Amino acid sequence: MTGIWINVIGFSAATLTTFSFVPQFIKLLKTKRTEGLSLTMMIQIAIGLLLWITYGVLRKDIVLISANTVGFVIVMATIIIYFKVNKYEV
Amino acid sequence: MTGIWINVIGFSAATLTTFSFVPQFIKLLKTKRTEGLSLTMMIQIAIGLLLWITYGVLRKDIVLISANTVGFVIVMATIIIYFKVNKYEV
Repeated sequence: MTGIWINVIGFSAATLTTFSFVPQFIKLLKTKRTEGLSLTMMIQIAIGLLLWITYGVLRKDIVLISANTVGFVIVMATIIIYFKVNKYEV
Repeated sequence: MTGIWINVIGFSAATLTTFSFVPQFIKLLKTKRTEGLSLTMMIQIAIGLLLWITYGVLRKDIVLISANTVGFVIVMATIIIYFKVNKYEV
């Protein structure tokens, strides 16, 4: 398989996983329901993404830095909505 | 920062994100609730991880292959539990 196709697969993988929390963010906004959703998972992912960003900075890897920064922002937005939704419920 | 510490950060990042769905899997098993959880997110992540595995195979990168295979298995297990829980509810 040529280099271009390998990069297309890599870029698609990065895009899907980087934006994977967008559907969860939208669902939270729409349903205002958090039952079944694990806050621990989201916090663990946020910390993991922060470490990936740090790793990317230390290795001067702009792809790692940019992809994981986008992912981190989306996960943090989802966590903030999670707390807002829960605050109104309690 | 020395190479060892950079690798420790990278390895910690990979471990946290690879096992990030374990808390979600456990929460589903315990609560049997799925209202707030986005199935689209989980399917998007599963496809993304499959592409990462393909990318790793094409680049002969054992770290990419192993980390994303573990992540893929955990997300698929969570999706299976999601359907089982929903089947009993309907």
